[in-house]
Amino acid sequence: MTGKFIVIEGLEGAGKTTAQNTVIQTLRTRGIADLVFTREPGGTPLAERLRSLIKEGHPDEPLTDKAEVLMLYAARVQLVENVILPAMARGAWVIGDRHDLSSQAYQGGGRQIDPELLQTLRDTVLGDFRPDLTLYLDIAPALGLQRARQRGELDRIEQQDLSFFERTRVRYLELAQNDPNTRIIDAGQALPVVTAAIEATLNQWLDAQGL
Amino acid sequence: MTGKFIVIEGLEGAGKTTAQNTVIQTLRTRGIADLVFTREPGGTPLAERLRSLIKEGHPDEPLTDKAEVLMLYAARVQLVENVILPAMARGAWVIGDRHDLSSQAYQGGGRQIDPELLQTLRDTVLGDFRPDLTLYLDIAPALGLQRARQRGELDRIEQQDLSFFERTRVRYLELAQNDPNTRIIDAGQALPVVTAAIEATLNQWLDAQGL
Repeated sequence: MTGKFIVIEGLEGAGKTTAQNTVIQTLRTRGIADLVFTREPGGTPLAERLRSLIKEGHPDEPLTDKAEVLMLYAARVQLVENVILPAMARGAWVIGDRHDLSSQAYQGGGRQIDPELLQTLRDTVLGDFRPDLTLYLDIAPALGLQRARQRGELDRIEQQDLSFFERTRVRYLELAQNDPNTRIIDAGQALPVVTAAIEATLNQWLDAQGL
Repeated sequence: MTGKFIVIEGLEGAGKTTAQNTVIQTLRTRGIADLVFTREPGGTPLAERLRSLIKEGHPDEPLTDKAEVLMLYAARVQLVENVILPAMARGAWVIGDRHDLSSQAYQGGGRQIDPELLQTLRDTVLGDFRPDLTLYLDIAPALGLQRARQRGELDRIEQQDLSFFERTRVRYLELAQNDPNTRIIDAGQALPVVTAAIEATLNQWLDAQGL
């Protein structure tokens, strides 16, 4: 049987890593143990090189918004074609730390790139490939960034001002609300509450799939 | 006065470097001396890093055709926004060793990526930015590759089989014949004849521009 692709999405500091552990435990409890983990941008040797270029930029040259989004999609297609699809084909479940929704939210919302352009890119590059389930961890940017800052140095994207993340969150919510395969988790609650919500949401979805 | 963008195109071994020198001499004779040189993919620090990734690939991972074309456009938008447009704005003339026509020919013809997809990418990324003049050096792939091989090691793209370059040439010719700003130069002739043809073509174009 073909595997599934479950994606965890959200702003910096929303708790994606903790959520991933919860997803892993929940799946293992169901006997789903052949799991592959990806992160975006990145997850393949070439995609990780692109990730470095995107995250670090270059001291002598601004990375344009358009080049950034093209590099994100280049990394994504490498990951989908060389890692995700082969893993799913052999029956593994793929747990993604970010996927296409991040580009739609950060580049479309945060950077205000024309959403139609992003949609065209998506369709062009990925066709009808989509996650089976996306868990969007919704958090107020101020709270998320506070958490992210406690983890250490901020990268090029995390240094954006707050309004960038506010726009990103708005777009995340718009898209999540309109996608039947995306569930919104209130990640601003206490950690045990968030964990319980993720478990419940995932179990409900697995039940509905008859898994 | 805004500068112009002149692009030299053609298969490996078509004689682009020699042609560039001819263009420089011809422009200088006309008193056009503020010249900027670009090569694609590349020409900026970030674009050169993308060039390395594209040219070398990765020993453990195939570069997918789609990722390749996205990286080519990422490099191109960096070059256009950070180098070409600013140079033209200050009145410099930009002489490009390859530009968008290469992607249309190599990726659309050689790699057989859907030309409509490439057109969408082009329009999305570059809008209505186009070279003022393109000189396409047409050469039979067998002859061009023979010349290219004499220069030394072949890179990832130059190692394609002959049919790849035949398809690329067919697409080059189709596009060149249908673009009023592109001139086709028969680059299979003896070098002095090719040089004279480039000079004559460029002078004719400059006359028509009143320059």
